[in-house]
Amino acid sequence: MIADSTIAIMGLGLMGGSLARAVAGRGARVVAYDRNADHVEQAMRDGIVSAALGRDLGGLEEADVVVLALPVDATCLAMPLLARRATKARLLMDLASTKRSVVACAEAAGVGERFVGAHPLAGSHRSGWGAARASLFESARVFLCPTPSTAPAALRMAEQLWHHLHARTEAMSAEVHDVEMAWCSHLPHIVASALARTLHEAGLPRSALGSGGRDMTRLAGSSTAMWTAIATDNASAITEALTSFEARLRELKEAVASRDATRIRSMLETGREWFAETSAQAEGADAAG
Amino acid sequence: MIADSTIAIMGLGLMGGSLARAVAGRGARVVAYDRNADHVEQAMRDGIVSAALGRDLGGLEEADVVVLALPVDATCLAMPLLARRATKARLLMDLASTKRSVVACAEAAGVGERFVGAHPLAGSHRSGWGAARASLFESARVFLCPTPSTAPAALRMAEQLWHHLHARTEAMSAEVHDVEMAWCSHLPHIVASALARTLHEAGLPRSALGSGGRDMTRLAGSSTAMWTAIATDNASAITEALTSFEARLRELKEAVASRDATRIRSMLETGREWFAETSAQAEGADAAG
Repeated sequence: MIADSTIAIMGLGLMGGSLARAVAGRGARVVAYDRNADHVEQAMRDGIVSAALGRDLGGLEEADVVVLALPVDATCLAMPLLARRATKARLLMDLASTKRSVVACAEAAGVGERFVGAHPLAGSHRSGWGAARASLFESARVFLCPTPSTAPAALRMAEQLWHHLHARTEAMSAEVHDVEMAWCSHLPHIVASALARTLHEAGLPRSALGSGGRDMTRLAGSSTAMWTAIATDNASAITEALTSFEARLRELKEAVASRDATRIRSMLETGREWFAETSAQAEGADAAG
Repeated sequence: MIADSTIAIMGLGLMGGSLARAVAGRGARVVAYDRNADHVEQAMRDGIVSAALGRDLGGLEEADVVVLALPVDATCLAMPLLARRATKARLLMDLASTKRSVVACAEAAGVGERFVGAHPLAGSHRSGWGAARASLFESARVFLCPTPSTAPAALRMAEQLWHHLHARTEAMSAEVHDVEMAWCSHLPHIVASALARTLHEAGLPRSALGSGGRDMTRLAGSSTAMWTAIATDNASAITEALTSFEARLRELKEAVASRDATRIRSMLETGREWFAETSAQAEGADAAG
């Protein structure tokens, strides 16, 4: 289904750029838009993109599949124009990290039937076309969130596309997706950023850290535009997760401040047991990732 | 200096076991004690340890170098016995992650002149003899903290030993060491553990996380005995670092809760700039580690 298709990709950052490389490598014709025209030109010079889409998305009419690889706020803003221009496409998909508002925007713009929200659980603290690679989605989990009116054929087409790229798909509602991501992804990102800012204010450079401290601050290097969009879009669920984390942290801090070895150890044990339950499995994925 | 020496190692966990492997591989005769006699027997079967030290440390008299590779509380408890038994040794060293109380114990036990506190910034979330490897200290930074009365010859001997193992040494006072570690190492560990407990209570297994979330919780798998000892030993400095982190986290949470994109982005930018300042350097070390 990829070969002989025209796939339009809006946004040639890490996600969109990697998708462009992956589908171009499998014979698709890729047309692209990026607000930075240099990125499109570079992608054309690299032989990945065949044609540039104009700012008004002229050229989108010929696309079989349209992928929005933009921050979540820009994705919603682009939806009405997409609805007007993508007349032929049977599958419209986004790649943003939150899904509830995007799915609602697609429905409101009248493209719900052809729309599937996608969130590949693949990434890097690096961003931009320079960081894009065709193998990014191999073995990755991709969450697919249909709208209330997504046609079964559109969902099936989205699954096939990701399976062609050797990703594994999991379908769920946008609401369930966003709450789970608040805990599993957004909370760790916020924590890493706050930790980075703490060390910055203490005057300690990242080079002073050991491998553990570097692990704990790597996410602070992520795209701030993307993460600002995620944080505002999923604010309620993230705030709830942060409140829970603050309570666990406070308990541990109080035990440390009072040098209560029994309580400290008991809390560390709970964390270690949680780690050990799935560590073999997760570390295997680490090694592959 | 390692070949033809007898090096006594107390504690065959990740640190002590790795040191045993490293010095045995360079020709030292290694004698060892571990509260778990099975570990010593295994190390003897593996051809690393030549003889077991008794529970009263009988046999320590013949050692040229004695290394305490125990949790910090056990290190202090063992110091008087060490002072009585290690009659020949010209260098006594510990490997604990905090240095102030150990250095004070050594001084109080009357071995300050021969004592050098060492903290190799090498580790793993794994622990025990099974995780020990001869290469653990290669390219690692090792902090050396002399007592007020450490003889220059003892400090020089400690430096030579670590340089033989291809580690880099940095000498500083135990006080400076412990404060810096509170921010660079102990704070990230406590945060990782609190994050693990948060996810545990939310019913989310570690296998649900992406690579970023796994990075952020790996330290939760560390030895709880060791980290309880560190947390109680360095409680004041850690509490100060945690208080600062809580304030940075609260600011970010408030910005998220109020969906204030400008403030969120500004805070994320501060973290990202801090990350970028030394990321190339630190990521190089990651790749090597």
